Amino acid sequence: MKEKVSLAVVRRLPRYYRYLGELQRQGVDKISSGGLAEKMGLTASQIRQDLNCFGGFGQQGYGYNVEMLRGEIASILGLPRQYRTVLIGVGNLGRALVSHVGFEKRGFSLIGLFDVREDVIGTSIGAHTVLPMSELEAFCLRERPEAAVLSLPRAAAPEVADRLVALGVKGFWNFSNGEIVEGEIPVENVHLGDSLMTLCYRIQSEENQK
Amino acid sequence: MKEKVSLAVVRRLPRYYRYLGELQRQGVDKISSGGLAEKMGLTASQIRQDLNCFGGFGQQGYGYNVEMLRGEIASILGLPRQYRTVLIGVGNLGRALVSHVGFEKRGFSLIGLFDVREDVIGTSIGAHTVLPMSELEAFCLRERPEAAVLSLPRAAAPEVADRLVALGVKGFWNFSNGEIVEGEIPVENVHLGDSLMTLCYRIQSEENQK
Repeated sequence: MKEKVSLAVVRRLPRYYRYLGELQRQGVDKISSGGLAEKMGLTASQIRQDLNCFGGFGQQGYGYNVEMLRGEIASILGLPRQYRTVLIGVGNLGRALVSHVGFEKRGFSLIGLFDVREDVIGTSIGAHTVLPMSELEAFCLRERPEAAVLSLPRAAAPEVADRLVALGVKGFWNFSNGEIVEGEIPVENVHLGDSLMTLCYRIQSEENQK
Repeated sequence: MKEKVSLAVVRRLPRYYRYLGELQRQGVDKISSGGLAEKMGLTASQIRQDLNCFGGFGQQGYGYNVEMLRGEIASILGLPRQYRTVLIGVGNLGRALVSHVGFEKRGFSLIGLFDVREDVIGTSIGAHTVLPMSELEAFCLRERPEAAVLSLPRAAAPEVADRLVALGVKGFWNFSNGEIVEGEIPVENVHLGDSLMTLCYRIQSEENQK
């Protein structure tokens, strides 16, 4: 069943998870697809369709149990998993990711940080000391990371990604703005600039309507 | 015409813009909707539909002129604009945004950085010196920023957003992970964690198919 689910649906699951978490914090026990739709800016039928991809979870005339649905979505997302993860490129962006993104809550556990720059190697961020890229192979053969965050310059990304694939890495979170490995390995590309350009369009579009 | 365009279509425009830029760098002059679709992982008919929202641009039997189409999309996105922009919260994330995101290329020009922390106020990033939040009102009344980047903690975001709206800010790029202003003002929320959870799902899903 899961293999048929489109990436567009999958991408909405973390949003459901987030909104359901907010409802839980507000003490809401149950919600109709219509109520959830309104909060999320979707339609009730889209929500029912999305969740039906995974087997439903709602009860006619009752709606969704918030805690249960959130638990189901967590388990669909694979959140009990903790993929061992390395982060390559400890500049401002890499540091921001280490300190701002709750990796553990989202299925990943950071086990090593790497950089090529002498002034960064050996510095600490939280519990981690930055290692030199020359130790990447030895580290990976020993620690077997399953995922990698690429917060390094675009030009360096493809070669580093290929090294990591050869070392068994099975998925990338890619901030390098470049194309990396092709094919079957999941790559989540984050293009922050796309969101900024969308904002530009939206501000302009509001102005034009005045 | 523009007011009818859905946000889903708008969100694809920066991707078109990016891919067309890559084609230009590779010296490609023209491309069919099928060729562009293959590169972008979309269908040719979706591309034709998307671009028809803005009036087409393709020629039957010829395809798209890469440079012209990119120019058209830039102008739809409003990229000649330079919205004066303040950034609030100069931690690792704020610094990463200032140094990694090409604001000018994407329709925004940074005119001021603000923080509340004594050890950050007065430090410089590129051409900018970090100002104290106590100077926000005076600065905005003088410089009239039109957009704001919120890279500050979630708890502080709504109050700061309200102050900025009162000062005339017309759009937000929000990294605080919280809900801010409701209503007509465009807000682009960036939830990095959503993309990480999607990666978790995709890695797991690949594993399950083996």
